Amino acid sequence: MKKLLIASTSTVHGKAYLEYMLPELSEHFKGINEILFIPYARPSGITYDEYTEKAKIGFGKINIRIKGIHEFKNNFEAVNNAKGIFVGGGNTFLLVKQLYEHKLISVIKNVVENGVPYFGTSAGSNITGLTMQNTNDMPIVYPPSFNTFGFINFNINPHYLDPDTNSTHMGETRETRINEYHTLNTTPVLGLREGSWLQVNGSKVVLKGKLHARLFEQNKPAKELPPETDLSYLK
Amino acid sequence: MKKLLIASTSTVHGKAYLEYMLPELSEHFKGINEILFIPYARPSGITYDEYTEKAKIGFGKINIRIKGIHEFKNNFEAVNNAKGIFVGGGNTFLLVKQLYEHKLISVIKNVVENGVPYFGTSAGSNITGLTMQNTNDMPIVYPPSFNTFGFINFNINPHYLDPDTNSTHMGETRETRINEYHTLNTTPVLGLREGSWLQVNGSKVVLKGKLHARLFEQNKPAKELPPETDLSYLK
Repeated sequence: MKKLLIASTSTVHGKAYLEYMLPELSEHFKGINEILFIPYARPSGITYDEYTEKAKIGFGKINIRIKGIHEFKNNFEAVNNAKGIFVGGGNTFLLVKQLYEHKLISVIKNVVENGVPYFGTSAGSNITGLTMQNTNDMPIVYPPSFNTFGFINFNINPHYLDPDTNSTHMGETRETRINEYHTLNTTPVLGLREGSWLQVNGSKVVLKGKLHARLFEQNKPAKELPPETDLSYLK
Repeated sequence: MKKLLIASTSTVHGKAYLEYMLPELSEHFKGINEILFIPYARPSGITYDEYTEKAKIGFGKINIRIKGIHEFKNNFEAVNNAKGIFVGGGNTFLLVKQLYEHKLISVIKNVVENGVPYFGTSAGSNITGLTMQNTNDMPIVYPPSFNTFGFINFNINPHYLDPDTNSTHMGETRETRINEYHTLNTTPVLGLREGSWLQVNGSKVVLKGKLHARLFEQNKPAKELPPETDLSYLK
């Protein structure tokens, strides 16, 4: 049975990396002492080693060891033997390109569908949707496809930001961008604010954290959904 | 000889569509009474007709007629007979996908290289660079390539935004995103603030408007460039 935590962000303002999620992570990875980390998204361009070190410090607080996928000789074995998987944030285009280049999409999909607990933050959450098309990231590389894991039947917009009503900036708001997506695509999009996450157990998808999330569906007004909303019906 | 105006935005806060650029546009399109408009970027998903109507109103104030490329039977003839070209903003991914699907990249490139004056705003400015990889837009469609016209030897980040030092939001700043680009790419990126534009005459590229622009080059600290800076040296 699928088991995922899909978080808007790794870090909330004023707290250390992963700190706000530690109780959930302890529960999610209960009985697991080592997790496979995928550092491909390289936030701010840091190296795989630097990023893995950061994840090690974060998970060290709940006594879980982290091993970066780049530390293994064989990627496929690393995934197939993993007891848990954490995909960190950064640039979604880079993450998706690397996953395709290493032929890891179907391998990771398979183990997660078969019950290996998955944790994603930001870009690592984006890719749990049907496509990466609601990322906020800059297209710094060209991936071979925008299609992603589809562990949930909709798309995620992480770090969801409400329009700043005082702004004089003329660039598009997040809501405008998602509405543009819906002029051409039918997939629902969940705007997940920083501090929110989804808990997936099999086909059940529930909104967690203290904040509302904003749901965008084609040809419908956007909806504010309170914590504990069951999103399993969405597709 | 190439002749382009490459604007960060179509509209500055508190003014009507194109209003702040009208004196420049009169000069740029001097002696020209009809311009070909490319509405493919569809801001907020508006139709080609709606977008063309908006451009008509904007250019009507300086007595220039606008005709949308979708109003012509033959796209190639429309471009080859154009006296001037205006590519409006919206979604860069959609704009680039449509340009490739209509096989217009080389056709437009050819006439502009041969002296047909070009005016671009936002997404229409993004595509004057070597690639669209510094767009701020959401990847709502998958274009066959990120390569664009290359009328200038660098890339544009339109609607450039300085970091908000009071923000508690953990999403990447614009500068972080551009720096991530430079961990993997060598092309310089010019952050063009709203109200700035580039004037291109042949190989000469000059920053115009009242604001500084922010230049990002690989392995160098970012630089603030004053108006009238000659950017012809960049590549």
